[in-house]
Amino acid sequence: MSQEIPYKIYLNENEIPSKWYNVRADMKNKPAPLLNPGTLQPLKLEELEPIFCTELAKQELDDQTPYFDIPSEILSFYKMYRPSPVVRAYCLEKALGTPAHIYYKFEGNNTSGSHKLNSAIAQAYYAKQQGLKGVTTETGAGQWGTALSMACAYFGIDCKVYMVKVSYEQKPFRREVMRTYGASVTPSPSMDTNIGRKINEEFPGTTGSLGCAISEAVEVAVSNPGYRYVLGSVLSQVLLHQSVIGLEAKAALDKVGVKPDLIIGCAGGGSNLGGLIAPFVGQMLRGEEQYRIIAVEPASCPSLTRGKYVYDFCDTGKVTPLAKMYTLGSGYIPAPNHAGGLRYHGMSSIISQLYDDGYIEATSVKQTDVFNAATTFARTEGILPAPESSHAIRVAIDEALKCKETGEEKNILFGLTGTGYFDLVAYQKYNDGLMEDYIPTDKEIEESLSKCPKT
Amino acid sequence: MSQEIPYKIYLNENEIPSKWYNVRADMKNKPAPLLNPGTLQPLKLEELEPIFCTELAKQELDDQTPYFDIPSEILSFYKMYRPSPVVRAYCLEKALGTPAHIYYKFEGNNTSGSHKLNSAIAQAYYAKQQGLKGVTTETGAGQWGTALSMACAYFGIDCKVYMVKVSYEQKPFRREVMRTYGASVTPSPSMDTNIGRKINEEFPGTTGSLGCAISEAVEVAVSNPGYRYVLGSVLSQVLLHQSVIGLEAKAALDKVGVKPDLIIGCAGGGSNLGGLIAPFVGQMLRGEEQYRIIAVEPASCPSLTRGKYVYDFCDTGKVTPLAKMYTLGSGYIPAPNHAGGLRYHGMSSIISQLYDDGYIEATSVKQTDVFNAATTFARTEGILPAPESSHAIRVAIDEALKCKETGEEKNILFGLTGTGYFDLVAYQKYNDGLMEDYIPTDKEIEESLSKCPKT
Repeated sequence: MSQEIPYKIYLNENEIPSKWYNVRADMKNKPAPLLNPGTLQPLKLEELEPIFCTELAKQELDDQTPYFDIPSEILSFYKMYRPSPVVRAYCLEKALGTPAHIYYKFEGNNTSGSHKLNSAIAQAYYAKQQGLKGVTTETGAGQWGTALSMACAYFGIDCKVYMVKVSYEQKPFRREVMRTYGASVTPSPSMDTNIGRKINEEFPGTTGSLGCAISEAVEVAVSNPGYRYVLGSVLSQVLLHQSVIGLEAKAALDKVGVKPDLIIGCAGGGSNLGGLIAPFVGQMLRGEEQYRIIAVEPASCPSLTRGKYVYDFCDTGKVTPLAKMYTLGSGYIPAPNHAGGLRYHGMSSIISQLYDDGYIEATSVKQTDVFNAATTFARTEGILPAPESSHAIRVAIDEALKCKETGEEKNILFGLTGTGYFDLVAYQKYNDGLMEDYIPTDKEIEESLSKCPKT
Repeated sequence: MSQEIPYKIYLNENEIPSKWYNVRADMKNKPAPLLNPGTLQPLKLEELEPIFCTELAKQELDDQTPYFDIPSEILSFYKMYRPSPVVRAYCLEKALGTPAHIYYKFEGNNTSGSHKLNSAIAQAYYAKQQGLKGVTTETGAGQWGTALSMACAYFGIDCKVYMVKVSYEQKPFRREVMRTYGASVTPSPSMDTNIGRKINEEFPGTTGSLGCAISEAVEVAVSNPGYRYVLGSVLSQVLLHQSVIGLEAKAALDKVGVKPDLIIGCAGGGSNLGGLIAPFVGQMLRGEEQYRIIAVEPASCPSLTRGKYVYDFCDTGKVTPLAKMYTLGSGYIPAPNHAGGLRYHGMSSIISQLYDDGYIEATSVKQTDVFNAATTFARTEGILPAPESSHAIRVAIDEALKCKETGEEKNILFGLTGTGYFDLVAYQKYNDGLMEDYIPTDKEIEESLSKCPKT
């Protein structure tokens, strides 16, 4: 076991990035613009402003500016839980008997339990700056809602969370964390909104979906003065904020002279993956360096590997703009797998374009294989990983085992986005041998895709 | 806001202490020895060996050796989650408007969610070294059981946990974490042991207690070849291992030139407090320095503030040796408050002696006040604290508010022992305004104390 590289490569506080990196600036093929679903024309700032905070809307539309200064108030908050470590997984390597060197960027050491806080604090800050009363959002597994609650508590603004009903009921503890931070949490679909009432009428007894909760949160934002809607993934502004993950990871690896051969991230809406790979893919886009990048998605919700690259709604209720993305169709309801953060029908426009251009590979994995990897990781590295993050662990382990066969000393970097402390129902199912896998049929996907809007 | 001192004062990996500090070596009045309950004579090594791992029994009895080398295998494990940061609570200070400087040593950034891992890995290591098959233990809130499960998984030995029945039922997620790490978890009192069957007969429907789970775990250890019993608190060996907390805290504060005026820790069995204060109280014992040290206990289980300093059993079933300690009587059943880790009838012999000699003050706090402080802390510092740790937060905030009145710029250090991710039932009660306080009457305590053994 080489002791040259420490277990945890920490940066100093003054090495936290002072700017976010906007990968779109280096993309020759820009992500396709958001469209107004009525006119099918690219959305203008003034059309986004009723929904998003103005500064965030500007960030959303800006595909030219390579760097955005991180405001000092956000940097102060970052210092409470950042820089996050890059960890050399010595114990996992030893257990696998692999010559590969495995590194992971650990974003779970904060109460939200995930990387979501990086963007939540930015979005809450801009809302506060704009003099807003509060923000609305949706949450599935609850990580984003928790992160936003923490951020809003810090800046003293209101936070209304629409939580997918099945999660609201199955994850009362997540709900309580949000309440402890002063947020109001409403199960979705609710009877408070037009879209919620409509969905409840159409599908009595429905346990909700992320797409449906988004519709409700947007409706509440646009119909309440002083409120805006914020989103934890998919949007380009979110990937911008999350670039702090990759910038720190690269700085830490540079410090110890390590170049990753392989960069692996789980991909739901794409916020973690987009953030982790940002500076690396920037080098690729500028022709400076080559990396192999793998997006890992659940076999039950395979937007990149089995979806289509078309314009689609971001929500079920079809109230959002249209985004061009790899999608399974906005009506796609994934099987109730245990990686709530990866159960989204579409994929970030940035990730979609990079994938389409061949900068990123994608693969999908079954959840029983994912929990097998999660258990191995927990027992060797000591951290109980989130099911979402464990998708990346699965592929990292598989790649390390390939290195064992070939004898290659590859450097593998993966994103450990969060912890699984609120996912013990899933672990219990796995421990009891009751976890099942679900893979949609081609017909199911085709049917869902057939309902995408014609543009 | 002074930026000279960073938010998080991290040590480097090579600054993790390489030795544990044994405060007993510097104590003029040594903690009273453990007694054989039959003969009332001090226990010898050979009497402890059937219960404890031999090396640990030696550590237990050694009140002379000031430093013990930390074996390299344990140091490797420590590197996965240590050094833990000392955090300057800038945001809390700002919210309180206090001139005091508040620091906390954060031990919660590992999957066990607490400082317990520091001793668990040591105890599992010595069991492995001795060639044992496994260890048995009890757990209340589940932090110790989780820590031990992680440690045993790392060294590949068996781990049998007896979990207080009420916690087993109310905290299924804690149980699942332990199972994920490969431990067997049995609700206590069980029907597997003589003492368990006896308690179940005497008190049908009992939901158990820590003292009772200890009795069961000890019985299983002594009646199964290749097994020993391990304990997460109270014992002097545990305080020895936990000295890593204080050694790191002192090294970090020394690095930035800060001397704490006040050191605050929650106190159940005393492991966290004893670890945190070890090097500081060592200086006091050697006459080198003065600090004010405050032990904080729950009003519902006030062993230091309302107990008696006498010999008592460490468990309910009266199978353990006798320890001289501040105790409420081994039959004392604390009200079902929400700080499971502080619901122990006695207190570490070391802490008891230091308290009796005036090196430590003690105070007790009500749990509603504790959760009020926990919520303030969560909203400002971003970390959802464990109810146990929040006892220390309560007193740290109170002391900081006193500084606000007097204008004193005191340096306050407290131990943030863990996170509250598995305590959301308690937070929910508090959020809903349903939490109650319970303070035992003098008569209740007297009655319980009257049953202490005569020595």
